[in-house]
Amino acid sequence: MRISQASVSVHVGVIGGGTVGGGVYQAISRNAALIASRTGVLLKIKRVAVKAIDEPRAVDIPLSLLTTDWRDVVNDPDVKVVVELVGGTGIAKEMILTALRQGKSVVTANKALLATHGEELFKVARENNTALFYEASVAGGIPIIRSIREGFVCNRFLNISGIINGTCNYILTQMEAQGHGFEEVLKEAQAKGYAEANPSLDVDGHDAHHKISILASLAFNAWVSPEQVYREGIRSVIGLDIQACKEWGYKLKLLGVVKYISQESGIDKIHVRVAPTLIANTHILARVDGVFNGVSVFGDVVGETFLYGRGAGQDATASAVVGDITDAALDISKGIPDRLIPMCLNRQVSVLPIEEMENRFYIRTVTGLGDEENAKQLVCGEGIQINSAKVIPTGPHSFVALLTEPTSWKKINKVLSMLKACTTCAAEPVAFIIEDFVGACSE
Amino acid sequence: MRISQASVSVHVGVIGGGTVGGGVYQAISRNAALIASRTGVLLKIKRVAVKAIDEPRAVDIPLSLLTTDWRDVVNDPDVKVVVELVGGTGIAKEMILTALRQGKSVVTANKALLATHGEELFKVARENNTALFYEASVAGGIPIIRSIREGFVCNRFLNISGIINGTCNYILTQMEAQGHGFEEVLKEAQAKGYAEANPSLDVDGHDAHHKISILASLAFNAWVSPEQVYREGIRSVIGLDIQACKEWGYKLKLLGVVKYISQESGIDKIHVRVAPTLIANTHILARVDGVFNGVSVFGDVVGETFLYGRGAGQDATASAVVGDITDAALDISKGIPDRLIPMCLNRQVSVLPIEEMENRFYIRTVTGLGDEENAKQLVCGEGIQINSAKVIPTGPHSFVALLTEPTSWKKINKVLSMLKACTTCAAEPVAFIIEDFVGACSE
Repeated sequence: MRISQASVSVHVGVIGGGTVGGGVYQAISRNAALIASRTGVLLKIKRVAVKAIDEPRAVDIPLSLLTTDWRDVVNDPDVKVVVELVGGTGIAKEMILTALRQGKSVVTANKALLATHGEELFKVARENNTALFYEASVAGGIPIIRSIREGFVCNRFLNISGIINGTCNYILTQMEAQGHGFEEVLKEAQAKGYAEANPSLDVDGHDAHHKISILASLAFNAWVSPEQVYREGIRSVIGLDIQACKEWGYKLKLLGVVKYISQESGIDKIHVRVAPTLIANTHILARVDGVFNGVSVFGDVVGETFLYGRGAGQDATASAVVGDITDAALDISKGIPDRLIPMCLNRQVSVLPIEEMENRFYIRTVTGLGDEENAKQLVCGEGIQINSAKVIPTGPHSFVALLTEPTSWKKINKVLSMLKACTTCAAEPVAFIIEDFVGACSE
Repeated sequence: MRISQASVSVHVGVIGGGTVGGGVYQAISRNAALIASRTGVLLKIKRVAVKAIDEPRAVDIPLSLLTTDWRDVVNDPDVKVVVELVGGTGIAKEMILTALRQGKSVVTANKALLATHGEELFKVARENNTALFYEASVAGGIPIIRSIREGFVCNRFLNISGIINGTCNYILTQMEAQGHGFEEVLKEAQAKGYAEANPSLDVDGHDAHHKISILASLAFNAWVSPEQVYREGIRSVIGLDIQACKEWGYKLKLLGVVKYISQESGIDKIHVRVAPTLIANTHILARVDGVFNGVSVFGDVVGETFLYGRGAGQDATASAVVGDITDAALDISKGIPDRLIPMCLNRQVSVLPIEEMENRFYIRTVTGLGDEENAKQLVCGEGIQINSAKVIPTGPHSFVALLTEPTSWKKINKVLSMLKACTTCAAEPVAFIIEDFVGACSE
């Protein structure tokens, strides 16, 4: 393609030659001229650090670019933008800090590292008048970081709710479609490459937990560490839960939520969690199925918005990474690498303990046949009002599901312990929040 | 609110004190300190030009800011960002050109002006090393311009399809929900303020036509003028059309489409249109109801994405305008007002005449009772294959609807003329495209 305007070349170094690294190399190889014609900046990949030169790669990278020492990338004086695609919270941190301290701009997709050490990393970026971009760390190809930080910059955020783990969403979608159990669908997802051999990072909610912590920090301009955020995965979900929710007009999704509660003395009180959650079918988030991600953002000026796309995978993630690289390169070419504050953390928030929250709940237990009324009475006895109930016989047991009026986590936890203690209880009782989105839903 | 970092003040002048102008004034008044704490730039509204000082306004603006002469805003040496919210293709053009020629950055929501004179305006912005922002010109509060231009910058766009006129979408949604006819629902929409007294701009598709032309130009980096783009509004839609589509599993929406067809000698061949279109219920665009807008973007790297939100109204539009003002102010504060190319127009496209396109179609006619088979035979006689048919008696007439296999507009137009010429034809026959999105739909 003809590059019809004078372009400035900016050299890029990539650490990591795996799936996303290969995708980034491929996207830049294919579309660098297009990007240059659109922005005036020609991206040139100068070095790529990999684990082993001769390991098999899905995307061919020229031998002349490869090195096995990440310092060759970071210390190359030509390299102005360092892309960290190694993952994890170990060596990746050293790589990023080393690059930032040399005044280089850094692009990362590393949600675990940002959630764990982001406060320090963003501080070092500011101290060195450079930038740290992280669009790909949350919701893959969806421009959610850019939208919250730039497009919606004039908004106070009232609610950000997202389906931000594609593996869990795939599993829940398949459980609904096939009527199969969690373990069976997980195995299938592993066979298809949608779940890892060790699936804990996804199915126990850690990955979504990292991502919602990043979104909470960005939206409220104050550091929210994962330790402050409630986390619950999807292992406890059984097929009948999904079925019962469906009959009641809900989808059961692993949902990350950041919610503004109130302000006192200039400090925002917020609620942040990741947990299986009931979403009314009328809400557009209920439409996010399979490996897709979706994030609903409710701002005080813009009202309700929603962004949707592939949350992972080589190409979707590469699209976000290359968008960031282009931003970084453009700012460098103009002499202002620190144009944007990567994550502004100059305010204070108080993350309310989940025990203080009130919600409507879905409660489910599995009792012995004939014990269904006892279970209901036990819930009512704690002052929790039941709006609707379902009892489904399953061989020697009864599946008992209830929808409640708003009540507190404290009461719910007490009730769950009592249900569990019943002699005929045949499965760990669960309670899932029914999310009533701020500002009502999309209709 | 405490502004906890040194902020640079940037003075803003607004031309237009109507709905959006009031929204912009209100959003900046309310959240300027928040924006400053996030970006380091404090927005200060210096002047607001209005039609009459003492006209009633939904949002109070201090008398000291008001003027009735737009030149007071543009020529004020303190004003670095000029916001044009007057609308129309007349004086607004002079306002923007005058500001750009003084090297001031301009923010506009004026889709009609951009679609008509954008090529000239963007050229003048470049010549004067300044910027022209227009996020609010398409899909209100949805960050679609920013996403296409920045977030998805590394993508070739294969398909951009959007429900981008809230008035039409409200009317079609209400026709479906209430079973009422177009005229009746239009009156109700006018009473609620969702449609203008003269509704032509919306219901005849002009507004969506402007917007899709802007998106086509931006996505393909070549000027696409509305004259090159097929336009059809929703006046011909009757209640039974919507009902029949629903029974077949489709939603009937006014859809703007930009589609990549092929490339020859470096020139992209594209298809661009605005027309009533059938969207399968399984596609997420089918979920956009009421006054909401939604845009699906399919890129060669990112795959399918989708953005959703309020497409009009004081606050959603103000959110987009203030996002742009902040960007402009940030670039000005860093001494690089021309950081981004507002719309890069250095490539060439060929917009294919709609007659050259092949699509599946929905055809509908209203015949005399007993003439239904004749209508079908007439369609088949032209070599168009019918996949499914519906006949609904309506008093003395029959509503006849057909779904076809892919065929050409030429054949369809011939068939429509023939159906219209039938002696018992009781309503203008119509044909609507069934959109088969590139890359299939979301699941």
